[in-house]
Amino acid sequence: MQEPGQIDFWFTMGSTYTYLSVTRIDRVQRTHGTAFRWRPFDLLTILKEMKHVPFADKPNKTAYMWRDIARRAAIHEIPFQGPVSYPARNSSLANRVALVGMQEGWGEDFVRAAYRRWFLFGEETGSEANLSASLREVGQDGPLVVAKADSAETSAMWSAETDAARGLGIFGSPTFAIGQEIFWGDDRLEEAVGWCQR
Amino acid sequence: MQEPGQIDFWFTMGSTYTYLSVTRIDRVQRTHGTAFRWRPFDLLTILKEMKHVPFADKPNKTAYMWRDIARRAAIHEIPFQGPVSYPARNSSLANRVALVGMQEGWGEDFVRAAYRRWFLFGEETGSEANLSASLREVGQDGPLVVAKADSAETSAMWSAETDAARGLGIFGSPTFAIGQEIFWGDDRLEEAVGWCQR
Repeated sequence: MQEPGQIDFWFTMGSTYTYLSVTRIDRVQRTHGTAFRWRPFDLLTILKEMKHVPFADKPNKTAYMWRDIARRAAIHEIPFQGPVSYPARNSSLANRVALVGMQEGWGEDFVRAAYRRWFLFGEETGSEANLSASLREVGQDGPLVVAKADSAETSAMWSAETDAARGLGIFGSPTFAIGQEIFWGDDRLEEAVGWCQR
Repeated sequence: MQEPGQIDFWFTMGSTYTYLSVTRIDRVQRTHGTAFRWRPFDLLTILKEMKHVPFADKPNKTAYMWRDIARRAAIHEIPFQGPVSYPARNSSLANRVALVGMQEGWGEDFVRAAYRRWFLFGEETGSEANLSASLREVGQDGPLVVAKADSAETSAMWSAETDAARGLGIFGSPTFAIGQEIFWGDDRLEEAVGWCQR
């Protein structure tokens, strides 16, 4: 159950804009005193159901996305070095690893580590190199965690989380939810906090 | 030519979010001292070239759009009474009328009047009822203006403006442009002003 003053932070690790939220959400939490529940979900499946593939075959929109991210990273004083490989081919595994981590208490640190490696070192999210290094960084045993991420138990939880996101009408990452109220995009983070605190 | 301190406000009258910009841009201009050049263009053609139809057959995204507009209208103290008929079937004519008006000095008032009728009185943009009432409101002769909007001269200018938008990589409305730098969305208006003034 979502507690009062808590915001659900729905995300997929395949999302580029989510880098901004992952990097600054702790600062927002400290500044405003709101608590965030990090909830990875299967956005790709929801987008496929919608027959929607963001940015695919849209070079002008993709170019704008990177420029927009660069400008907004500068506004928030977040390191950014330019476009990275996108879409990430194996973000599903990264998401399920994150879900395991959220149960075990190291999920947020893992997500931050994996995004840093993707955006600053160019290691694609969900790749073997990124996964093993990010898990090592947060003190986890890679093969053991990947086995858990591939288990039936995680798969069931993954589906349940995605059902919950779908039920809220979520179609993008990041999305911030307070009850039934959803705010899509890193650029709506402050608005979500304001809604939560009113 | 764009002058220093000037922002090009690219828009189509078929766009819902553009209602927010049209309604508040004068206030932004007074507060920040930036000047805006209103430039209607043929977004539908650019979207077709991209094989992109925003919101079509995406009920969750459309529902979110209206909720987002309602919340942001409240933030900016802009009147909003709920979803209106969308997409507008004849926004192209409204855009070309606006283009005529921009040449003759009554364009901004016409666009504001037409949006008010669409969003507050439910008269679809580009419809006969909306067009004739909005033109009357700004002291123009409807049939005469529509004849100008349908002329070869306006058609050529319309294509040239759309080519200019395409050349900047514009793919949505509203878009704010300072030189080659583009900012997409009403929610980027303040960022565009900041960029212009830095």
